[in-house]
Amino acid sequence: MKKILALVIVGLLLGGGVAFAEDLTPAEISAAFDMIWLILAAALVFFMQAGFAMVETGLTRAKNAGNIIMKNLMDFSVGAVAYWAIGWALMYGNSVGGFIGSSQFFIAGADYELFRDWMFQVVFAATAATIVSGAMAERTQFSGYLLYSVFITGLIYPISGHWIWADTGWLAEMGFHDFAGSTVVHSVGAWAALVGAALLGARRGKYIKINGQVSVKAIPGHNLPLAALGVFILWFGWYGFNAGSTLSGSDLDIAHVAVTTTLAASTGAIGAMFTSWIWFGKPDPSVSLNGALAGLVGITAGTWVVSPVGAVIIGLLAGILVVLSVEFLDKVLHIDDPVGAVSVHGVCGAFGTIAVGLFADGVNDPDTVGLFYGGGFGQLGVQLVGVIAVFAWVVVTAFVLFGILKATGKLRVSEKDELIGLDISEHGMESYNGFQIFSNT
Amino acid sequence: MKKILALVIVGLLLGGGVAFAEDLTPAEISAAFDMIWLILAAALVFFMQAGFAMVETGLTRAKNAGNIIMKNLMDFSVGAVAYWAIGWALMYGNSVGGFIGSSQFFIAGADYELFRDWMFQVVFAATAATIVSGAMAERTQFSGYLLYSVFITGLIYPISGHWIWADTGWLAEMGFHDFAGSTVVHSVGAWAALVGAALLGARRGKYIKINGQVSVKAIPGHNLPLAALGVFILWFGWYGFNAGSTLSGSDLDIAHVAVTTTLAASTGAIGAMFTSWIWFGKPDPSVSLNGALAGLVGITAGTWVVSPVGAVIIGLLAGILVVLSVEFLDKVLHIDDPVGAVSVHGVCGAFGTIAVGLFADGVNDPDTVGLFYGGGFGQLGVQLVGVIAVFAWVVVTAFVLFGILKATGKLRVSEKDELIGLDISEHGMESYNGFQIFSNT
Amino acid sequence: MKKILALVIVGLLLGGGVAFAEDLTPAEISAAFDMIWLILAAALVFFMQAGFAMVETGLTRAKNAGNIIMKNLMDFSVGAVAYWAIGWALMYGNSVGGFIGSSQFFIAGADYELFRDWMFQVVFAATAATIVSGAMAERTQFSGYLLYSVFITGLIYPISGHWIWADTGWLAEMGFHDFAGSTVVHSVGAWAALVGAALLGARRGKYIKINGQVSVKAIPGHNLPLAALGVFILWFGWYGFNAGSTLSGSDLDIAHVAVTTTLAASTGAIGAMFTSWIWFGKPDPSVSLNGALAGLVGITAGTWVVSPVGAVIIGLLAGILVVLSVEFLDKVLHIDDPVGAVSVHGVCGAFGTIAVGLFADGVNDPDTVGLFYGGGFGQLGVQLVGVIAVFAWVVVTAFVLFGILKATGKLRVSEKDELIGLDISEHGMESYNGFQIFSNT
Repeated sequence: MKKILALVIVGLLLGGGVAFAEDLTPAEISAAFDMIWLILAAALVFFMQAGFAMVETGLTRAKNAGNIIMKNLMDFSVGAVAYWAIGWALMYGNSVGGFIGSSQFFIAGADYELFRDWMFQVVFAATAATIVSGAMAERTQFSGYLLYSVFITGLIYPISGHWIWADTGWLAEMGFHDFAGSTVVHSVGAWAALVGAALLGARRGKYIKINGQVSVKAIPGHNLPLAALGVFILWFGWYGFNAGSTLSGSDLDIAHVAVTTTLAASTGAIGAMFTSWIWFGKPDPSVSLNGALAGLVGITAGTWVVSPVGAVIIGLLAGILVVLSVEFLDKVLHIDDPVGAVSVHGVCGAFGTIAVGLFADGVNDPDTVGLFYGGGFGQLGVQLVGVIAVFAWVVVTAFVLFGILKATGKLRVSEKDELIGLDISEHGMESYNGFQIFSNT
Repeated sequence: MKKILALVIVGLLLGGGVAFAEDLTPAEISAAFDMIWLILAAALVFFMQAGFAMVETGLTRAKNAGNIIMKNLMDFSVGAVAYWAIGWALMYGNSVGGFIGSSQFFIAGADYELFRDWMFQVVFAATAATIVSGAMAERTQFSGYLLYSVFITGLIYPISGHWIWADTGWLAEMGFHDFAGSTVVHSVGAWAALVGAALLGARRGKYIKINGQVSVKAIPGHNLPLAALGVFILWFGWYGFNAGSTLSGSDLDIAHVAVTTTLAASTGAIGAMFTSWIWFGKPDPSVSLNGALAGLVGITAGTWVVSPVGAVIIGLLAGILVVLSVEFLDKVLHIDDPVGAVSVHGVCGAFGTIAVGLFADGVNDPDTVGLFYGGGFGQLGVQLVGVIAVFAWVVVTAFVLFGILKATGKLRVSEKDELIGLDISEHGMESYNGFQIFSNT
Repeated sequence: MKKILALVIVGLLLGGGVAFAEDLTPAEISAAFDMIWLILAAALVFFMQAGFAMVETGLTRAKNAGNIIMKNLMDFSVGAVAYWAIGWALMYGNSVGGFIGSSQFFIAGADYELFRDWMFQVVFAATAATIVSGAMAERTQFSGYLLYSVFITGLIYPISGHWIWADTGWLAEMGFHDFAGSTVVHSVGAWAALVGAALLGARRGKYIKINGQVSVKAIPGHNLPLAALGVFILWFGWYGFNAGSTLSGSDLDIAHVAVTTTLAASTGAIGAMFTSWIWFGKPDPSVSLNGALAGLVGITAGTWVVSPVGAVIIGLLAGILVVLSVEFLDKVLHIDDPVGAVSVHGVCGAFGTIAVGLFADGVNDPDTVGLFYGGGFGQLGVQLVGVIAVFAWVVVTAFVLFGILKATGKLRVSEKDELIGLDISEHGMESYNGFQIFSNT
């Protein structure tokens, strides 16, 4: 009997003994999964910066291409420094009443978990910042844009982010569900973009008043293949954005998230394509590309809590919605958003967030059940509160920010500079040397 | 005695008890490796869509760039929905006699494994579909292309895929070896493309009959850097395509696959470059780029079962073969394949599949030994059967499909539409607004 | 009593028994982490080839775009074969006195670890080779370039690499620290590029002597968006380059590396942008893009051993330094480096390596402490020795190599070929068919 017991104990020691030499402990295994998963996901989300840069460049004019590149490069660069210095602290530091974080400035004293989490979060902050660039393209002063980027990544984004993604944020405590950031990231960027575009005014020649009637002119982009490449890069990066938001490399729901993301992007493209086909008579490439993005933004909030069927419907509706929204902003409100960023990220971000209150099926998260799955109006109400609260926060702060820039003459370039293009006027260079290019405005 | 036992049990509870709280079980560890590996590999394979889009756009004319983009975006989008609704079910559902799957439509009731496997498989299905786009470029109706894409991802690809990759598929049971899809994916797309290109006829001005002699005109692409970017993206994504096909994140043969993939791609580019140098007098960039792809397609079947030396030889031969095949199709058969898709994916896919029967060394898979490594003609025969069976299946079904489209006038655009370009005629837009571009046909 | 024991044993058998069937052993778990981490990191580093190709193409003229593509494609292809045949053996084979490896040619008899490590290393070797292409752009013979690439990946790079990264390399034994290759990879490529550019001479029309005064002409690139895309791709791939260099997928310092890499790239872009703003009057896009690369190259040596604050400073200084260095080479030394490769990879690579001797804080690696953190001049001295030794090795060998090519007339194209562009003269093709392009020299 003793022998058997001894054998068991020796066996345990032999098995476990190796662990002291070089084996990984259970905690280390778990940590390693989370580490490689979140760092690779962060790299994918970082790469979305290239996607935004290409989409925005491709959908605007050649004479401003270098300026758009600069904005996309520099909003990440200054944004990363701002998010390091104060952004993270305001978003994930010790909470002051669920409204704002207050510690870990400069991620001081970071251990591997803090390094890892900062790395994953900084690329989200930069995504919010870079969304603004598209809506304000072709007429914004570069120095004003730089200043703005610091404020969104350092202040505006982290504070509303704290409400939702910090454990004790007031919206988090209400049960508001935004898995990967339809509202936290996309809407924040888009509502700021909306305020910016409205305060800036339209590009010259975009809306021409003739006998009291406003004639709306389309200003087509200069490089569709580049815009398409950007969308493919964004879609690719979105697997890091959404699936990475499990925050755990051993979470087996990663696949569920990837599947709903894929289906919603697909039906987003399909929805937008058919809408453009019916509306304009032909299937439009740039509309279809925006449709894929609309589907992606739309599914981002609910990717973990909706079924594949839910994802198919959400994507399809987002794809239709983005076309109608772009038309409404352009033809009715006369707000000039060159790439459709407000519609893609704002309108479809809000829609996707609200859709959680409709389509969440309670399978992965029993606490989040939407109206169509027997959850009543409770979740829907909470989602609406969150959408409205973030909208209000961003519109007010962005209005102050852009208002100050406008009042001090730092917002818009001169008419002459706009005419010759921001590449020459702001940066003293041309993007396509040697090519014969005609300016179309 | 009791105390010792109690101690052991307490120890187990302490050690194992944590497990209930947060440690991963052995099964969970295994599952986590497979999950992050397959989802990341799937993301890489998805990104190959960007690669195909850039290669095809770059190697064709500017006036059709937007159309090519649309085809590449939409074949994935409608393909993903088709593969969700029926493709997966026909490929991996319960087998009916080894010929066709018959369950799991709409991946109903999916658990994490099914979600994961669907995600990895849908990107392969979409790859098969998108291959067709290149060979049929610059003259196909967009609506016909959409319809076609649904059928290949929903029907044609899954059924022959079932034969080979489903456990009880009839070719699988014969011992046919196609590790990552030289035949399952690439040949399927390419043989459909061959039929499509043949039924479509050549682009106007491509083959001009003068006194009974056919004069073959080269129609160069409009953007080589974009095509090159596409090839680099494809090569990058191929690490997901091939190494991901271990289907297990803890399979230590992942490295073997990555190494043979790298070497074959390299010697493919080298083989094609020197062949073009000898044949045409100068080393041709687009030929060399296609050579890298030829090496990649060629190694895809045998990447796990051939040695590095085998990979070097297979890649080199594929690189030479692709040049000869492109010339043969163009100069002898007069089948107009604007990007060489039939040669790259079809001819080199078949070659690579057959090469398994020659170069498999039996080290990683003792059941698969080729002629040159003492395996006799057995494996070679099986590989030939598979190549021929898939060729027959695809040629027949594609002929029916494209035949119906042609008979109903949905296959080819009008001569006038082709002349002004599909961007304007099919989509009402231009891809490079502002640039001075001369049409060269 | 017996029953309880039996229960324990049965429990162990049930729990542990599965292990014999399919559970992973502790060693297998560790190996699986390293495998997927290093293969994915290798794929990311491979993708940097696309980044280099796009940066170099974008920053040079349209008439040479196809040639640059060919060089970038083929240096990887011939380099991979050379590194397979002899490069790896010279770098990691059994050491002969710490100076050169001498076994494992053709990675014969490779097990999974050797396959894995070769895969991760070959992409670094190819990075060193491809750096040269930019500095020698627009005037080098293609055949000479091919030959050169074989020698750098097969001989020059592996030997100095052996000194530093092989366990018993003489610089490694001195305590020289270059975590991911500021010197091993980037400087090696750049010093070879410097010798090559100097021996080649400037592009025609670059430096014009008027009355004894040299007038320096800027020759702008033809596609800034492409160059920007390249920088984003490089930055993205750098997460594989630096974080992958932990060489272990369960190393929790991966996040530290990713964070310092991100911050240094950001402040590099910021430093270069403000320097150009002050120096030239406007914030220059291509300078800012090079600044991000300068920050990345600068942090590569010390990414694991410096703090975030250290990274911010190193990046900033690298970003300033790269602008001054480009100006110095161009305006003072009159060495024509079309893309600034010598400054980005050589000067900032040396700076970053030396910075380890200043900023290493001893937290992650107690053996590596810099001057500013109380380590005295010891580490700084060792870093200087390494930088100088590698500089000497590469300059001498590259001088022999390029000297022979020059003496045999294989280095530079004829003046006429340079004028019409290397696309037509070396490859018989045009990169942008149909576009109206004006040659600017």
